[in-house]
Amino acid sequence: MSRESDRRDVLRATAAARGLDAVLVTNLLNVRYLTGFTGSNGALLLRTDGADLFGTDGRYTTQAGVQVPDVELLVDRATVSALAGAAVRRGLGRLGYESHDLTVDGHGALATVLADEAGGAAPELVSIRRAVEGQRAIKDDDEIESLRRACAVADQALAELAAEGALRPGRTELEVGRELDARMLVLGAEAPSFETIVAAGANSAIPHHRPDATVLRDGDFLKLDFGATVDGYHSDMTRTLVLGHAADWQREIYELVAASQAIGRAALAVGTEVVAVDSASRQVIADAGHGEHFSHGLGHGVGLEIHEAPGIGPLGAGTLAAGMAVTVEPGVYLPGHGGVRIEDTLIVTDDAPELLTLTSKELLVL
Amino acid sequence: MSRESDRRDVLRATAAARGLDAVLVTNLLNVRYLTGFTGSNGALLLRTDGADLFGTDGRYTTQAGVQVPDVELLVDRATVSALAGAAVRRGLGRLGYESHDLTVDGHGALATVLADEAGGAAPELVSIRRAVEGQRAIKDDDEIESLRRACAVADQALAELAAEGALRPGRTELEVGRELDARMLVLGAEAPSFETIVAAGANSAIPHHRPDATVLRDGDFLKLDFGATVDGYHSDMTRTLVLGHAADWQREIYELVAASQAIGRAALAVGTEVVAVDSASRQVIADAGHGEHFSHGLGHGVGLEIHEAPGIGPLGAGTLAAGMAVTVEPGVYLPGHGGVRIEDTLIVTDDAPELLTLTSKELLVL
Repeated sequence: MSRESDRRDVLRATAAARGLDAVLVTNLLNVRYLTGFTGSNGALLLRTDGADLFGTDGRYTTQAGVQVPDVELLVDRATVSALAGAAVRRGLGRLGYESHDLTVDGHGALATVLADEAGGAAPELVSIRRAVEGQRAIKDDDEIESLRRACAVADQALAELAAEGALRPGRTELEVGRELDARMLVLGAEAPSFETIVAAGANSAIPHHRPDATVLRDGDFLKLDFGATVDGYHSDMTRTLVLGHAADWQREIYELVAASQAIGRAALAVGTEVVAVDSASRQVIADAGHGEHFSHGLGHGVGLEIHEAPGIGPLGAGTLAAGMAVTVEPGVYLPGHGGVRIEDTLIVTDDAPELLTLTSKELLVL
Repeated sequence: MSRESDRRDVLRATAAARGLDAVLVTNLLNVRYLTGFTGSNGALLLRTDGADLFGTDGRYTTQAGVQVPDVELLVDRATVSALAGAAVRRGLGRLGYESHDLTVDGHGALATVLADEAGGAAPELVSIRRAVEGQRAIKDDDEIESLRRACAVADQALAELAAEGALRPGRTELEVGRELDARMLVLGAEAPSFETIVAAGANSAIPHHRPDATVLRDGDFLKLDFGATVDGYHSDMTRTLVLGHAADWQREIYELVAASQAIGRAALAVGTEVVAVDSASRQVIADAGHGEHFSHGLGHGVGLEIHEAPGIGPLGAGTLAAGMAVTVEPGVYLPGHGGVRIEDTLIVTDDAPELLTLTSKELLVL
């Protein structure tokens, strides 16, 4: 059986346990996860009795045949309505749906189709909320391999740009960002994971600075937060370099963030509460008197989305499990001066976490 | 006043005409259109009395100050709920919202906040549906200039690759696609407009082929459908070339599609029904006996989304207006052999349409 078939069986067990006859999966990433389909329109009617139905429109007939060979195909321009009609005709009584994904209009159209098709006894709509996202938080071997490749592309792109002297005074943040993005594509990325952050000098103190025409100067911090998408999976890495010569204050906060990040990585263990991981890393920075300069959460899950479960921050809930893919990314930001963030993507395992972003975390002076 | 301020005033008039006290805009592209904000979390409470409120979270405080200087800022992690609370405290009675964007869960949370804050008399929620998308269908001068630049990047990228000999037998579809994407980034694109289509030989008969390891061969059709995003605006262009030497059947369907596309472009005029544009172009292909080989609509609006209003196809509704940005992209696909699509992005004007994608449409034999 395919990995997607295994994933559908896990959701099938969840649906059966909740007393549902079927689940209508509309979130496109969840559809991809459960079927392998990568087009821009598709939905899955997953039935507890195993007779699933995959819906898409005529643009994707060929692609669906290749990517989803093991699920019955229904081609209809009004994909969700057509699946709902099929659910009624097959006599399903309780139908799960994704209330965090379906819009108010989509829900209205779905309820109308169910009522029209059924006459008197329309199926009951029951939200499954984020059941598939919960399942996606634990990565299987194929997913971890995709994440490894996505991280390797980002590592390689940065190494090549550094070796070629592309990160030097006189260039602009925008130029560096575009070259980094272009290099990742040439190295096999489908796309950058998100809008690449290149922040030089005082801009490095802005956690989510958008690259602009700012010119890189000697003595600047250069903060690069970027990633590559491979097979739909996102890598996420931040490195902070110094151009030319590192001042004492720069070395000081760099070493502080590096120490905090190492503690955070070491805290990643099966069964540990996510808030404990955040606080272990945060305490190092607070003890040095910079607590107020670390203004965001420690990390987040990564996978088919750049931000997914689990969130690792002061308000996070739950514990770590083997197979979770997460970032650890503390930072110290001194407004008007500069900031440092160091971020890796890692896999939680029964032993030490597996580090996927392999670029050195020694302070690099270029 | 800024262009965004002008756009808010248009929506304000729509809201007033519908008897609303305010509109809660949650669709992120609509928020960008109305405020200039480009971050990943933001919402706008637009009030008919003019006292608007822009909401985002703490990551974007600096960016919001720069991009949205003329709207009062509310920073809160729970952005939509915070705006809803403000609406209640300011005594608003009828609140418009985007039912095509807000999820069932989002609507539930919004209704709960309104009820909790208001006690007895919560504001009434009224859908404005796609009011902002309707407004967005007519582009202003700034938007048209962004589209011009996005189209110019795509033109330039293709010209450079062709001049460098990158489109030649022996290379793979994937290699060509990645180079095209990378070149657009270097030329100033923020991203490709969509997943670039590179389809060689028999693959060119698949309208939405995903580039794969297929090797380009002498005598192949090479179909390239791609675009660049600049300032958030998407260009969209398809060109079909021949490698090495064009066979008679290739010239024949190429000339047919080119004639159909010219008729479609010529039909773009203010007041013309979109179905008439589609049928004018389609008739040329049907008359040549290839009606069944043109399996999709003729075109679509482009802007902040790659597909937006108006849809130009056999089932389209409405008429063209000055300032609409649309594609014209007929195709003839012969399964197992090859296919041709020729696509431009154009602006509807009171005179002849303005052509934005300037790459030649003569059959190019490389």
